[in-house]
Amino acid sequence: MKVGIINVTGYSGSELARILRRHPEVEIASVTGRSAAGQKLGEVFPHLGSLDLTIEPELSGSLDLVFSALPHKASAEACIPVLEQGVKVVDISADFRLKHADEYEEWYGVEHQKPSLLEEAVYGLTELHRDEIRAARLVANPGCYPTSAILALAPAVAAGVISPDIIVSSLSGVSGGGRSLTMTNHFSEVNENAFAYAVNGHRHLPEITQELDPLTEQQLRVTFQVHLIPMTRGIFSSCYAPLANPDTWAGDEGKQRLVDIYRDYYADHPFVRVVAAPPQTKQTLGNNMCLLHPVIDSRTGRLTVFSVLDNLVKGAAGQAVQNMNLMAGFPEDTSLDELAVYP
Amino acid sequence: MKVGIINVTGYSGSELARILRRHPEVEIASVTGRSAAGQKLGEVFPHLGSLDLTIEPELSGSLDLVFSALPHKASAEACIPVLEQGVKVVDISADFRLKHADEYEEWYGVEHQKPSLLEEAVYGLTELHRDEIRAARLVANPGCYPTSAILALAPAVAAGVISPDIIVSSLSGVSGGGRSLTMTNHFSEVNENAFAYAVNGHRHLPEITQELDPLTEQQLRVTFQVHLIPMTRGIFSSCYAPLANPDTWAGDEGKQRLVDIYRDYYADHPFVRVVAAPPQTKQTLGNNMCLLHPVIDSRTGRLTVFSVLDNLVKGAAGQAVQNMNLMAGFPEDTSLDELAVYP
Amino acid sequence: MKVGIINVTGYSGSELARILRRHPEVEIASVTGRSAAGQKLGEVFPHLGSLDLTIEPELSGSLDLVFSALPHKASAEACIPVLEQGVKVVDISADFRLKHADEYEEWYGVEHQKPSLLEEAVYGLTELHRDEIRAARLVANPGCYPTSAILALAPAVAAGVISPDIIVSSLSGVSGGGRSLTMTNHFSEVNENAFAYAVNGHRHLPEITQELDPLTEQQLRVTFQVHLIPMTRGIFSSCYAPLANPDTWAGDEGKQRLVDIYRDYYADHPFVRVVAAPPQTKQTLGNNMCLLHPVIDSRTGRLTVFSVLDNLVKGAAGQAVQNMNLMAGFPEDTSLDELAVYP
Amino acid sequence: MKVGIINVTGYSGSELARILRRHPEVEIASVTGRSAAGQKLGEVFPHLGSLDLTIEPELSGSLDLVFSALPHKASAEACIPVLEQGVKVVDISADFRLKHADEYEEWYGVEHQKPSLLEEAVYGLTELHRDEIRAARLVANPGCYPTSAILALAPAVAAGVISPDIIVSSLSGVSGGGRSLTMTNHFSEVNENAFAYAVNGHRHLPEITQELDPLTEQQLRVTFQVHLIPMTRGIFSSCYAPLANPDTWAGDEGKQRLVDIYRDYYADHPFVRVVAAPPQTKQTLGNNMCLLHPVIDSRTGRLTVFSVLDNLVKGAAGQAVQNMNLMAGFPEDTSLDELAVYP
Repeated sequence: MKVGIINVTGYSGSELARILRRHPEVEIASVTGRSAAGQKLGEVFPHLGSLDLTIEPELSGSLDLVFSALPHKASAEACIPVLEQGVKVVDISADFRLKHADEYEEWYGVEHQKPSLLEEAVYGLTELHRDEIRAARLVANPGCYPTSAILALAPAVAAGVISPDIIVSSLSGVSGGGRSLTMTNHFSEVNENAFAYAVNGHRHLPEITQELDPLTEQQLRVTFQVHLIPMTRGIFSSCYAPLANPDTWAGDEGKQRLVDIYRDYYADHPFVRVVAAPPQTKQTLGNNMCLLHPVIDSRTGRLTVFSVLDNLVKGAAGQAVQNMNLMAGFPEDTSLDELAVYP
Repeated sequence: MKVGIINVTGYSGSELARILRRHPEVEIASVTGRSAAGQKLGEVFPHLGSLDLTIEPELSGSLDLVFSALPHKASAEACIPVLEQGVKVVDISADFRLKHADEYEEWYGVEHQKPSLLEEAVYGLTELHRDEIRAARLVANPGCYPTSAILALAPAVAAGVISPDIIVSSLSGVSGGGRSLTMTNHFSEVNENAFAYAVNGHRHLPEITQELDPLTEQQLRVTFQVHLIPMTRGIFSSCYAPLANPDTWAGDEGKQRLVDIYRDYYADHPFVRVVAAPPQTKQTLGNNMCLLHPVIDSRTGRLTVFSVLDNLVKGAAGQAVQNMNLMAGFPEDTSLDELAVYP
Repeated sequence: MKVGIINVTGYSGSELARILRRHPEVEIASVTGRSAAGQKLGEVFPHLGSLDLTIEPELSGSLDLVFSALPHKASAEACIPVLEQGVKVVDISADFRLKHADEYEEWYGVEHQKPSLLEEAVYGLTELHRDEIRAARLVANPGCYPTSAILALAPAVAAGVISPDIIVSSLSGVSGGGRSLTMTNHFSEVNENAFAYAVNGHRHLPEITQELDPLTEQQLRVTFQVHLIPMTRGIFSSCYAPLANPDTWAGDEGKQRLVDIYRDYYADHPFVRVVAAPPQTKQTLGNNMCLLHPVIDSRTGRLTVFSVLDNLVKGAAGQAVQNMNLMAGFPEDTSLDELAVYP
Repeated sequence: MKVGIINVTGYSGSELARILRRHPEVEIASVTGRSAAGQKLGEVFPHLGSLDLTIEPELSGSLDLVFSALPHKASAEACIPVLEQGVKVVDISADFRLKHADEYEEWYGVEHQKPSLLEEAVYGLTELHRDEIRAARLVANPGCYPTSAILALAPAVAAGVISPDIIVSSLSGVSGGGRSLTMTNHFSEVNENAFAYAVNGHRHLPEITQELDPLTEQQLRVTFQVHLIPMTRGIFSSCYAPLANPDTWAGDEGKQRLVDIYRDYYADHPFVRVVAAPPQTKQTLGNNMCLLHPVIDSRTGRLTVFSVLDNLVKGAAGQAVQNMNLMAGFPEDTSLDELAVYP
């Protein structure tokens, strides 16, 4: 299968190239980049030198599927003509994630270019929409934070374990901010530092509510707060919510029942694992796993769920390939079955 | 004034030495360490070489005040005889922080050696107990996490801004775990990693509830979750709670009123500053400040307060010196008026 | 092929497991660990949980090849009986690297347990000894530093480009010091810090001289200085030596001739690449490459060669698998053909 | 004394403000910045908020001394009019460091704006030029690398301990590259990474040779190679050179004689200390010390000198204040007598 990568020169784009290189059914046939057009991919990313590709200004040749790793707005502009040529698209940007154009406009500050596609696009959180993804022409790959938060909360919301009065307190490595230069990814400003950002609301919030809302009859109330910490890769989300019936979760029996609910929910999903000890971001460094660990705080009657993943893999390029595998009929874990690099 | 430092060889102890060296009224007259007794302080900590002190097995000479930087249990054992000799004590361990011996035993797993001292000891969160500290013979210096959390929440709890159904989600640098060797301070395990620990309850929780409880008539419910992140110094606490009357905090007026409540609460306290932009741990690196930033989430009717400090300074040695200054009648900020080292 | 890993619980051992898991011809049949015997491998290393192995006190079952990732001395003790049972061994420790038992004793402070094996053992720097490794029963896997230094210098020494009056100034990530707890891998001591260690001579020096010496008629003089820097993985070696005939390397022609010498030397070696721009350790993170970049300093008539690799892969477990592939007749790059994880 | 800081918005400029705030004889009367003019200093650097200064487009008011923390070329442009008004200047840029305008042009690629000032300017490496600095009108503050290298080598060169065939292999924290945004200070590119840069010659080389040359009759040959490592502050220089008479330095006696040469050389200099154990950059974090440790390698007849300092303090702003103290007749260590922040 021939695939193209639009904007291979960002971190999601280069990670796509890294993962797809080992895919036995895929040929990376065309890669584009804005400022670096004309350069060899290996000049920009020496670790990708063995791919022997030249960065083009536009996609070329006949392609079966295209990944877009452009920022929002630019991504829709690039994806729409590709779709119109009958080529399938996995868009890593936010442009097709939200179902409502007005919500998109509210959070992203631009009018949506083709609202009709919002209905068609499938939200690419694989574990929640696997069958739709198999049939999709356009998959909107989720944000890194929402992937961690939705996977952490979906089983508890769906099973009515919690009242959906939720606080998601997430930590991110710096690569989540991309490869463009800003003061918040300047080494000396970020190293030996921690801080909250987007304190008046982060754009990933509406994805979280959009996906959790259909799982419950109750009114969702989600506070979502993000923090930057001095590491390159990794998302750590701590999700807090009150238990619906705190008294029914006592002791080891309650603990086991909770774990069972989580394990059952993801029973046939290879990339979500409910782990017995609190997980660490490093346990997913470089691979496509999301590790979950739910804990009951009997003192306060709350559930806490910890969720970790690599923001560039399960949070971006890895999940995009997982979705491509489904869209193309390949086994879901093809080229994604690598262990984390630890330590 | 002659002071002694018990266990100068840990991070709190060495930080005490660093801060006290510039104190114009203090002579560090005796320092002890367990394994390093007999060595020059500068052999263990080259940056303290100019102090020209020898580490002793026990305190020696006549002293006016003693700091203990031992771990709990060992600290009480060391402090009790010092107090009995009529010497004032600032204990950085947890041994005299909790008012109830049974609570101490529940959380620390050892019987308290002298429960009668628990009543006398003053909890050394300076901003809440300044007058008592002035008159105290024994000050129990707070934990690093509780310092950040209580300072963040006290104004809102005291003013009834929130229903005290609180979640404190804190991040800590690795030095908070001390100088003893463990797998959770091994560089290769912690670098490029983030994780939650003490997921079934952290020992600092009862300090937080003990100090906030008297500020409200309502029933406190506090979930306190800690995370380790790859930096050496710094605590970042994100504190979440529902607004008591969400409708009354709308718009810029609400925002300003909230800031005013916080600024008034700390109006004559030089080491707590309510800042206009979200704070960063690095803005307090090496100094005694605690920076607070309260934010209203009108979508969910919640208050979030961000709190940062240096765990070894305001979270340990700095606050200990602040307390000593009060106990000795020195200006509160003597030797503590340094700016943060940034970047 | 069934292989065993002795001491899977160190960083080289766990990295062997990570790499071998994707090897199509290898079954990891038995793994041992000292303190962790009886535990599941996934309890100690969650990222290896999918391997479903139990750590044993001793190797069990019939094995075709054994890796030892024990420290020196303990490794020889463990490997000798394995060899005597007719099983091939790749020893990652230093126990069989040096040809002379007295040199071993001088640097390692213990008598060698079976000097007769020193002659038989093949020094496992694959690029220098590929044919011998193919036929070997016992391969002594090189140290991480020597791998970087010898690969950097061999072409220049062999071709007489330099007078072998060499300074190797190397930087290492902290994982090179292993998983045992010491003050020099304590996060707070190493983070935001850099220092030289082993300033009176590092044990890896005799490997470097042993391997370079046969390549020249001239008298070698090697200063080898190591530094620890705050990263987990990676070796960066800067190797300095005077050009034998400085005047003959002028301009672009000299530069190109030098690169040609290096490229020719490693022409049929897939894991050494002579790169056009100064390399970075991150370009080899997690994979088996060694990147070289030779530079002529015409001001001083010196050659500088920069060399980077991942200390746990090409510097340990990866090269061990590379050697195993040769010993077993598999393609040299089997299970080693992964790209670096960047950023 | 009233001082001004031109370009307070870079790291050297903000560090000047941090240090000068505690200076009992100095009032920071005017600070400038390019893009941030009109903002409060505390908006750009919250840790400097207590200074209550507004960033101006140009210096204002009557000043006794001005620091320039601008980049080269812009700095000369700004300093020349200040000097012409009879105000003393400490220039942290490279514009007045080199004695020869053609050498300046060769390395910096711009014509010097006022070569006549090159002769007058005093190279502000305090320990080598203290008396001249006392009388100077214009001090050219040294680069961070040259400060570490020259202090490391001057005693050995001056005493004829070595043949001046020198290799300086230096490591730097990322803040040395300043606050402007580049790919080489992007967190995700630099974290968990190490690399050499300026492999064809770094601009700090001519300062090193200029200052060492007068100390010897012999022909200097200096290779100077710099490396970036993932930390914010700190320079670590390893300086290698052949001993002039290797046989005369044997054993403990030679070692002691060498240390004595170094200690004597810096006997009355408070900010250079010859230390007994290999130094670490962290031992100087935030303070004005340079720590030196010379070692004889008897195997190869070489001297190695390790040198550490904080690039923003002794390597920039601290040394600038040290020079100001001399120029103004204050005690040399005024406001510079702080201990390092460790860990």
